[in-house]
Amino acid sequence: MNAGHRSESVPNASRLRIAVLAGGVGGAKFVRGLRQVAPEATISVITNTGDDLWLAGVRVCPDLDSIMYALAGVNDAERGWGRAGESERVSAELAAYGAGWPWFTLGDLDLGTHLARTSWLREGATLTEATARLAARWDLGVSLLPMSDDPVETHVVTEQGTMHFEEWWVRHRAALPALAFEQVGADRARPTPSVLGALASADAVLLAPSNPVVSIGTILGVPGLRDAVVSSSARIVGVSPIIGGAAVRGMAAQCLAAVDVDVSAAAVARHYGARVDGGLLDGWLVDTVDSAVVPELDSEGMRAVARPLYLSSLEQSAAIARDALAVALG
Amino acid sequence: MNAGHRSESVPNASRLRIAVLAGGVGGAKFVRGLRQVAPEATISVITNTGDDLWLAGVRVCPDLDSIMYALAGVNDAERGWGRAGESERVSAELAAYGAGWPWFTLGDLDLGTHLARTSWLREGATLTEATARLAARWDLGVSLLPMSDDPVETHVVTEQGTMHFEEWWVRHRAALPALAFEQVGADRARPTPSVLGALASADAVLLAPSNPVVSIGTILGVPGLRDAVVSSSARIVGVSPIIGGAAVRGMAAQCLAAVDVDVSAAAVARHYGARVDGGLLDGWLVDTVDSAVVPELDSEGMRAVARPLYLSSLEQSAAIARDALAVALG
Repeated sequence: MNAGHRSESVPNASRLRIAVLAGGVGGAKFVRGLRQVAPEATISVITNTGDDLWLAGVRVCPDLDSIMYALAGVNDAERGWGRAGESERVSAELAAYGAGWPWFTLGDLDLGTHLARTSWLREGATLTEATARLAARWDLGVSLLPMSDDPVETHVVTEQGTMHFEEWWVRHRAALPALAFEQVGADRARPTPSVLGALASADAVLLAPSNPVVSIGTILGVPGLRDAVVSSSARIVGVSPIIGGAAVRGMAAQCLAAVDVDVSAAAVARHYGARVDGGLLDGWLVDTVDSAVVPELDSEGMRAVARPLYLSSLEQSAAIARDALAVALG
Repeated sequence: MNAGHRSESVPNASRLRIAVLAGGVGGAKFVRGLRQVAPEATISVITNTGDDLWLAGVRVCPDLDSIMYALAGVNDAERGWGRAGESERVSAELAAYGAGWPWFTLGDLDLGTHLARTSWLREGATLTEATARLAARWDLGVSLLPMSDDPVETHVVTEQGTMHFEEWWVRHRAALPALAFEQVGADRARPTPSVLGALASADAVLLAPSNPVVSIGTILGVPGLRDAVVSSSARIVGVSPIIGGAAVRGMAAQCLAAVDVDVSAAAVARHYGARVDGGLLDGWLVDTVDSAVVPELDSEGMRAVARPLYLSSLEQSAAIARDALAVALG
């Protein structure tokens, strides 16, 4: 992928198999860094599909697309979502007809992705197959794997009623207090064979610094998936999405509140739990501002490492990924 | 709609009910003229849906949209189809992913129409209801009525196989000889209540100068629809789409050949048949270049009128519509 950083890359990387659990934007940045430091590794990105929705008859998969666009280099980095150079001509027509969700704008380029995917799904392809066909256009350097081929939708319970996660997040900007999250369809969902295979063969399992509740939590909520993670012979290492008591991006604070977890790097680590105590984590990366929690997490059975965690550049992301891998493999 | 032509409009038009059978482009031009001369009449445009297709998971209705766009004044008159000011960003994406039909370009503005319609259809709306919701955005001045809410697809039998009409027309430019046309689904299709009501209450039934085989013929091929036309207490008057032995637009010549009908105004009239002999037509408008056939058609029981038939301007279209109405009402 990029040989320029060979001196920083991981030894024996060509035989390395890495499974990452990831949500959208934070997941995308982390995986770009990982691809940079382990360009020869087989990287499987097990991606949250709980944000997926039907909109005007097309299937929209926000997290899969965020990661695909970022790895393809066609994402709008400034805006933080969607395609660069985007336009919204179709959405304006939909709004003029009173169709769709007026507060959800589908970009024209983005819509091309949704339409291609939807047409294949309607022809009988699985989401895994449709995602692979989309990915084939680009040079992603990773396998992009939906957590499940079965539809799972995250709904948010609020005092104003229960709504799709995207309605809560995009329409209400997460301003309505979330009382609980529901994974509609999860009871009938299974992890895909690709996901199970990636976990079974992984030399390292990494949790991206994604939302612990509605991204990583949703992935782990697919029946059988958490067991497959825990059954891995590899170490499981996570990267904190919380720095200095605040979420770096997105709505993690509001989501953690709904599940009674403090907004802190240590609380999220304990939410995942130490593997030695029946939880997930062998290791946990916190930011240097949170380095005070390292000894206590270590004493609780997680190998904690403090280092700068802002995914502010590809170089930073690569350095974080390298350190996460080092904990997993070291 | 437009009071500027009051002197040319039809007397007692406010109580007048007119039913028109129409295909796409020619139908649109004719109906624009009709609306001009009978702005206070209730005009129902019974429209061919045999060209409709699923493309990348969206329902495309070429004839309904051609008429809607033309009556809304947003059609691309120069190109002859689609929306003015169109772009094709979504289609370019679909092509890059290898999705859709590579030879069928969906414009972005046009796609907004298809997506809105498709979302309503998937929610359970009938095509008639979805069409009315689309039409509500514009000031069409007519009721746009799909011939049926049941899917009917015109397929073309050629020596290279049987294909959807749009594939034959758009991809192959009607260059493959058509051996026959099939109306897939017609055996299970019914005319809509709106169509039957419009025909039952009509003071005049007009056949637009549309393709006699794959537009008007397809409409008449919906079981029960032809009977409803013939049962009308109103006169039935058609406008020839053939002038001087050639189709004015589209692929009528190729279609007539497939059903062994000569490409002439008189042959098309006889294909429809005189109502007095069990056919459809009480009257038939031919172009002045075809005026020689007027006496023979008259003698066969159709009141034939020769007048300029090129739909070259709104004024021309209005004049043709006025003359057709005059034959129907006179």
